[in-house]
Amino acid sequence: MESVNIKKLANILNISISTVSKALRDSHDISKETKEKVIALASELNYQPNPHASSLRKAKSKTIAVIIPEIANNYFSLAINGIESIAQEKGYHVLIYLTHESYLKEVALIRLLHGGRVDGILISLSSTTTDYSHLEEVQGKGLPLVFFDRVCENLNTVSITTDDYESAYNATKHLIGQGCKKIAHLMISKNLSIGNKRLKGYLKALEELELPVDETMIINCTNEEETNFELIKILLQEKRPDGIFAAVERYAISAYEASKQLNISIPKDLKIISFSNLQTASLLNPSLTTITQPAFDIGRQAATILFRALEEKRYLLKNEHIVFKSELIERESTSK
Amino acid sequence: MESVNIKKLANILNISISTVSKALRDSHDISKETKEKVIALASELNYQPNPHASSLRKAKSKTIAVIIPEIANNYFSLAINGIESIAQEKGYHVLIYLTHESYLKEVALIRLLHGGRVDGILISLSSTTTDYSHLEEVQGKGLPLVFFDRVCENLNTVSITTDDYESAYNATKHLIGQGCKKIAHLMISKNLSIGNKRLKGYLKALEELELPVDETMIINCTNEEETNFELIKILLQEKRPDGIFAAVERYAISAYEASKQLNISIPKDLKIISFSNLQTASLLNPSLTTITQPAFDIGRQAATILFRALEEKRYLLKNEHIVFKSELIERESTSK
Repeated sequence: MESVNIKKLANILNISISTVSKALRDSHDISKETKEKVIALASELNYQPNPHASSLRKAKSKTIAVIIPEIANNYFSLAINGIESIAQEKGYHVLIYLTHESYLKEVALIRLLHGGRVDGILISLSSTTTDYSHLEEVQGKGLPLVFFDRVCENLNTVSITTDDYESAYNATKHLIGQGCKKIAHLMISKNLSIGNKRLKGYLKALEELELPVDETMIINCTNEEETNFELIKILLQEKRPDGIFAAVERYAISAYEASKQLNISIPKDLKIISFSNLQTASLLNPSLTTITQPAFDIGRQAATILFRALEEKRYLLKNEHIVFKSELIERESTSK
Repeated sequence: MESVNIKKLANILNISISTVSKALRDSHDISKETKEKVIALASELNYQPNPHASSLRKAKSKTIAVIIPEIANNYFSLAINGIESIAQEKGYHVLIYLTHESYLKEVALIRLLHGGRVDGILISLSSTTTDYSHLEEVQGKGLPLVFFDRVCENLNTVSITTDDYESAYNATKHLIGQGCKKIAHLMISKNLSIGNKRLKGYLKALEELELPVDETMIINCTNEEETNFELIKILLQEKRPDGIFAAVERYAISAYEASKQLNISIPKDLKIISFSNLQTASLLNPSLTTITQPAFDIGRQAATILFRALEEKRYLLKNEHIVFKSELIERESTSK
């Protein structure tokens, strides 16, 4: 039987190869009508995305890779448990790789996975990644890839996050509602989609409630705990914020430690809210108000989509962004 | 060149094959003198432990596996960071596999690693593992294996732990010194070397200070948080202990949560000490007295030994137990 390729689909439909390719990738450039025609024909003729992909799909390693920046973070441990709960059902092994926030390490790990060691990849990007060609390369080899949390929205695949912008906006509004007027933001790298969105949500709330934006109150936190601790101490001493919105739970922990050292009383002198899946949030002194992400469910969803791509011949990963809702859990650290 | 095997070594030295084999494994049955003779000759003739091992050592995957029971535990995340710090220097990748405390999963993962996917294994056993033949099997394939934390002391390799017995003894004595008379122990599975030793240290301290042992005050905790929470609540309601020694940090967290729900005041009504690398221990309400293990250093040491076995042809992993000291850090949860 003659193999079906994009060219053949294009010939039959009398449209360009690039249109077929874009339609299969669900590009916004292509009309809904054309997309439906292309997909119907591709399905009818049993079109296989590319020979590499199908050969890899046959030579199953029964293993998927999870690439994450760090391990000492409850969000990731919960997400991994979610991923493993699905992998277990499917009889797959899960390999975990850590990038320690290094772009070069991420590239090296992705290259290591080219060789059929795994059937698919779930990834949350390192904070130093700004070039995505290593990911396009691995997709080119037919290895399905799904993003979660720290995503790249320009790549042609599914990405799963929480409502980072809205949550950051709500977190900041919550601080303002509790009486804060000088709110600092402990920011995670702007390279990251989540860093960018959380910053924007913070700025939007300030703007909407007519609070001035002070650039020196936006702290670009690092991957070094000691550095963050020092940055936060300087912030507290020199800028005397009355509220902190932390983009990541370990920044909030550093803020607690710095406040303790400087005898700043939470929540009296300083209110703190943080994105966090910290198990001990309710046991801290004072208990920490959090934006809690459904990390386990996100892991399950990411794995479910990856397995669909692995199991269903005709299921193509396309550019799609799935958003889960976070929950603001009010505790003592922001009480009036 | 004729290959050098154990038989040849035995012939030249005029001793039995079994003596040579035992000498190379550093068995206690063999005199120091004989061992030295065997090792000197093996070294002179460039003896390679076994053909499987040497072939694997040639076909390097430049990858090591770390097999651990769970990820949401600060001990393991720190240990992994220690392991990765060494692997990074050596240009190796680290794969992390989780057993979720399942013996069957551990066996499946170990079997998966037979095929040359990794060059060596660092493992901390699952709490349901009581048979070790899967580990002997992988050693038989020439894949070096080093234990850390949850070890099997009968296997012919290096195992690295902290001074679990002494630390548990000191923890219990600390509670007694702070005035506790009815001390409960939240125990981790007796299957585990660490579970057994921590229990024995607790019992020894009670005995030495002439406190009665009440079996119903020793709670065999599970891998389910909800179950542990219920078990601890029943313990607190029915047995009214004035002290708790927790073998693992998540049991201490459950004890905090149960105390909170029952309005039991820590440390006034109940003092708590726990093995823990919890980053927020000092920020809890009240701050938690811990036995803190040098987890990062343990990871580094385990990796260093594994890499020695990978890099030095003549370095054989032998039955050796390396012990690191833990530190008792006194905080509010056990104050008078």
